[in-house]
Amino acid sequence: MKIALLGLGSVGRGVVQVLSNPAYGFVITAAADSKSGVVAQQGKSLDMDEVFAHKAATGKCGDTAWNAERIVTEAEYDILVEVTPTNAQTGEPALSHIRAALARGKHVVTSNKGPVSIAYPELAHLATEHNAAFLFEGTVAGAVPIINGLVHGLAGNKVHQLFGILNGTCNYILTRMEEEGLTYAQALDEARDLGYAEADPTYDVNGTDAAIKLVILANAVFGMEVTLDDVIRIGIDRLTPDALRMAGTTNHTIRLIASIHPGKRLLEVSPRLIPKDHPLVVEGTLNAVTVETELAGPITFIGRGAGSVETASAVLADLLAVKERYGRT
Amino acid sequence: MKIALLGLGSVGRGVVQVLSNPAYGFVITAAADSKSGVVAQQGKSLDMDEVFAHKAATGKCGDTAWNAERIVTEAEYDILVEVTPTNAQTGEPALSHIRAALARGKHVVTSNKGPVSIAYPELAHLATEHNAAFLFEGTVAGAVPIINGLVHGLAGNKVHQLFGILNGTCNYILTRMEEEGLTYAQALDEARDLGYAEADPTYDVNGTDAAIKLVILANAVFGMEVTLDDVIRIGIDRLTPDALRMAGTTNHTIRLIASIHPGKRLLEVSPRLIPKDHPLVVEGTLNAVTVETELAGPITFIGRGAGSVETASAVLADLLAVKERYGRT
Repeated sequence: MKIALLGLGSVGRGVVQVLSNPAYGFVITAAADSKSGVVAQQGKSLDMDEVFAHKAATGKCGDTAWNAERIVTEAEYDILVEVTPTNAQTGEPALSHIRAALARGKHVVTSNKGPVSIAYPELAHLATEHNAAFLFEGTVAGAVPIINGLVHGLAGNKVHQLFGILNGTCNYILTRMEEEGLTYAQALDEARDLGYAEADPTYDVNGTDAAIKLVILANAVFGMEVTLDDVIRIGIDRLTPDALRMAGTTNHTIRLIASIHPGKRLLEVSPRLIPKDHPLVVEGTLNAVTVETELAGPITFIGRGAGSVETASAVLADLLAVKERYGRT
Repeated sequence: MKIALLGLGSVGRGVVQVLSNPAYGFVITAAADSKSGVVAQQGKSLDMDEVFAHKAATGKCGDTAWNAERIVTEAEYDILVEVTPTNAQTGEPALSHIRAALARGKHVVTSNKGPVSIAYPELAHLATEHNAAFLFEGTVAGAVPIINGLVHGLAGNKVHQLFGILNGTCNYILTRMEEEGLTYAQALDEARDLGYAEADPTYDVNGTDAAIKLVILANAVFGMEVTLDDVIRIGIDRLTPDALRMAGTTNHTIRLIASIHPGKRLLEVSPRLIPKDHPLVVEGTLNAVTVETELAGPITFIGRGAGSVETASAVLADLLAVKERYGRT
């Protein structure tokens, strides 16, 4: 199947690397970065090594006659893969691109949290209306196949509660504060040095990033209709090493827990006490999700919540699901 | 869709209970226990309360004019649900029933490890040939959607290694030996008292049960062609509390680990040292599986590995997958 790829940053490069294996049966026929675009000749696919070489030399992947917007509406492709950085306020420009692709009956696979958290109901409706797939496994918990697990693996199970560690930066900071008695500021500095925290870590440490992922799960998996404003959010920036030490005296620790009670329409991200031997207590930048279900009991999924190849892995699983369901080419 | 249900023990009762919710869209049109069978009138479904009442009163669910074999080949149904107890040596009589149903082009969903571990290649071929589904999520790790996770959630990912705690009885015994310093015999007695171990726990404690599950994963998920004889097996019955205490001095514990290295055709079930903070170290009767994948890195799945409703949950997820793919009724 033919792919139009929007976003040639680290996730985009991961996707290209993964799809270079011809066994998967995908070709890239169009690609765009934020400044330009490139489209393969009719019946051909792009040489992505050449595209990246061009980008390295000129700062643009193609020429400015093409761009993401024009590719979405005019290029020839079956699946739009949207892996540009998240804009948490408006979801743009990704939201408009996804909307336009679905309206053309093109399938969409994305790792971009913005559009999914802001406009899931509208986009899902558009996809259904045009018999297109709209998949976004990579938006929540990176490589961990949590959306597939909830929708398919635990199909038919009513979920009473979901608890997740959905932000690797916070989990790293809390792990280090616990293990070494570091202050929040020391642990944050260390996370920055290691590339686990961004220069401005506000969205991570104040719980917004985890809250956005909760909104996606709430709307897309549990059929709720909520927005970011519905999530109670308390960050980790005021936690002291003393609080963690106190927790330790009763064999507990403190982690930033994101939770959904679907029945009560309650969404919350906050630092919470949790027994050290609970499966959710994972180390470092790992992510983990425990769902308490009616029939299956509690089920926990653990893995890497970020990383370009890890996110590309989630994109690949979505692409293979589209191919299984719709692929006849 | 119409279901023929073979097996009215605890898992069968769990399945009946779950399917009584009409929202799922399944009806039971035929059922059999080991001695008899009962078939609904044309166009009707069975009243399972009545069937169980009849079984309680007479020891048989129906009359002896029908039995499992005749139901499989003559009754009207879309999906055979085979949830009778496992025969690890021959897989019979379930194996013959599954074979006959697939040969009629009927879908098969089973939680019975015997036939899948003994004859997966043949049964999968038969299913493909007759355009039928053959699903068995409930055979490995109970409620944990591990097969779906590997096949779909992590689709496209090469698995380097798989490590699993696939036997809840052994995990309970080892947990108790570690926590309380009990001997193997004491912990086994306790597990028996709580119903976590059978009167004859041989297959659990010598690693056979976990090995059977490994064979299923190896053949069905990793495309290997192995049998139980290919699995190196060492049980837990000679472990001493001292060994666990020694492990504890370096912050390790001992668990019965089932492992597959697909590239090396190496399958092994044995007690192994493992760091206490590893996600695989779960408490009590829980099951856990960690897969180390090429793109997604290590992913861990944790949940209840046994129980009638938990296994019924896996059967339900399989049934809904069949319905999504084939259901038009």
